[in-house]
Amino acid sequence: MREFELIDLLTSRLAPRRDDTERGIGDDAAVLKPTPGRRLAVTTDTLIAGRHFPHDTDPADIGYKAIAVNLSDLAAMGADPAWLTVSLAAPTLARSWCEALIEGMQAACCDGSTALPIDIVGGDTTRADTLTLGVTAIGQVDAGGAITRGGARVGDWIAVTGTLGDAAAGLRLWPARHAAGIHEQALIDRLTRPTLRNGAALAGRVHAALDVSDGLLADVEHIARASRLGAQIALNALPCSEHLAAVVPDVDDRQRLQATGGDDYELCMTFAPGQYDALARALDCPLCVIGEIVASQGVTLIDAQGQAQAAADYGIRGWDHFAQTVSSGDDCSHGRER
Amino acid sequence: MREFELIDLLTSRLAPRRDDTERGIGDDAAVLKPTPGRRLAVTTDTLIAGRHFPHDTDPADIGYKAIAVNLSDLAAMGADPAWLTVSLAAPTLARSWCEALIEGMQAACCDGSTALPIDIVGGDTTRADTLTLGVTAIGQVDAGGAITRGGARVGDWIAVTGTLGDAAAGLRLWPARHAAGIHEQALIDRLTRPTLRNGAALAGRVHAALDVSDGLLADVEHIARASRLGAQIALNALPCSEHLAAVVPDVDDRQRLQATGGDDYELCMTFAPGQYDALARALDCPLCVIGEIVASQGVTLIDAQGQAQAAADYGIRGWDHFAQTVSSGDDCSHGRER
Repeated sequence: MREFELIDLLTSRLAPRRDDTERGIGDDAAVLKPTPGRRLAVTTDTLIAGRHFPHDTDPADIGYKAIAVNLSDLAAMGADPAWLTVSLAAPTLARSWCEALIEGMQAACCDGSTALPIDIVGGDTTRADTLTLGVTAIGQVDAGGAITRGGARVGDWIAVTGTLGDAAAGLRLWPARHAAGIHEQALIDRLTRPTLRNGAALAGRVHAALDVSDGLLADVEHIARASRLGAQIALNALPCSEHLAAVVPDVDDRQRLQATGGDDYELCMTFAPGQYDALARALDCPLCVIGEIVASQGVTLIDAQGQAQAAADYGIRGWDHFAQTVSSGDDCSHGRER
Repeated sequence: MREFELIDLLTSRLAPRRDDTERGIGDDAAVLKPTPGRRLAVTTDTLIAGRHFPHDTDPADIGYKAIAVNLSDLAAMGADPAWLTVSLAAPTLARSWCEALIEGMQAACCDGSTALPIDIVGGDTTRADTLTLGVTAIGQVDAGGAITRGGARVGDWIAVTGTLGDAAAGLRLWPARHAAGIHEQALIDRLTRPTLRNGAALAGRVHAALDVSDGLLADVEHIARASRLGAQIALNALPCSEHLAAVVPDVDDRQRLQATGGDDYELCMTFAPGQYDALARALDCPLCVIGEIVASQGVTLIDAQGQAQAAADYGIRGWDHFAQTVSSGDDCSHGRER
């Protein structure tokens, strides 16, 4: 397919549906009209074949995930997603491949986590040796309503939506995916199609939030550091899917996946304990309390025996794309170097 | 340099300077507060080493150009640039290289084409085999003030800022750049550091506009097609720099560079003839009338002898990244396949 055909395909498939999209794809820039008194939240994340997803990933899953990881960042700010731009660099483009990619992007836009439609309003296409998808997402949030990582308070409960460790287990199962049973497939699906949450439900209810992309402990560390506080996490409290329990029966192995595996894209938040009920209702998804914000800095793990252990000793490391111990040729690190 | 060091470097060097940037780099998303009654213009462009710039380009020039090509799209909408996100994928990152890249990005943000500062408010860093810079730019424009490609009217003059063909000549000179004289260097500089124009000057004065990135004739064709009209361009009227005249004395060769060479990032606009004086004053840069919008569709060239020729016969082709005649291994096509 030629570039102009691709742009025609994009223009016809991605016609604006929002009243506040004045002009979408097709000019030098899109034109948007945000609501007065609201703030815009903007985030960008790029996914590269062989690094953030395996080379042989279904294009619909690639499209879904590229959108989802960006919407997840907006949700973690408490923002309503509104607009997306997509930059596509690829070796060649077969029409059926592009159609599947667009279908996956649209599925992420229409997953039901937000009431209003999300418009893809622009982008860029280039030939490149490595398939690369760069997405920028723009959302809206009330003035003063954006939820940062730095707002946690001592005594806050720490909770996460959904379950943890599934995507990391899915990555481990990827090479054997063609022989996957029901539980294995469910874990792989969590890797390729992360569940999106309604971040707008957090507004006015939580003190700090982020999405679990680097791995829970590394991400809680981000909150603790930004808030200049500490956190205690109960290993036994980490929410576990029935699929993960079935596929990884060893408790130590499983808890390590839950505590350090990335790519779950669940929301992690801290809030006054009295907010729990209202928050769980507003989120309309499982919400599991896993720990507490404390005054002393650092992240501490409490194990099944009630023993405390520094999270750093548990073997976590922040996600560092440029860590020198990592070769650049690894085929599918999912962007994580641990 | 590790990723966290890079993020620290970005955070310290790129601290917000705008009053309407509520939160910049460092959380899940930036938070912006646009002015009520205005519109946001959003654009994105990705630059890939070996395709959009030669592998051995100075990192400061890479940073400058990645920002400039996006600001140029906002200018072509008549928008005031305000915020940028930058997605960086690179094999490794030396600190001095990153510092030069940031310096180049800042130089593009502070080039004087806009009165207010431009904030880089977020981004993303990933390891990748090929250096890739994805930028998204967000600007503001009054409600109803966005200038599209589709607004040209019969009888409009067509004009361009600055001069044409310099960047294409600079690309041709690139292999011999170490032995470049004054004129040659000036042309190479136009390739690496395109001049930015004050797009806000177009608002309320022009009917249609875009930036000359694909090559003048291909870009005028974009305006003509979007406006469902045609255009006549006088080859002899195309503005020529003294540097281009000195380096490419052959008139036919030179005019071909001016008419079909890309990467100049000058603004091309159509407007009622009576607007010329006010427009030239507001733009505060050379503004050269090169043709006229006509009712009959297609783009026609008028040569020095007054002979008309269809632009298509002059050998133009739209910029198509996925044209099948192009090998993907060419070292520096600058994204153009003609």
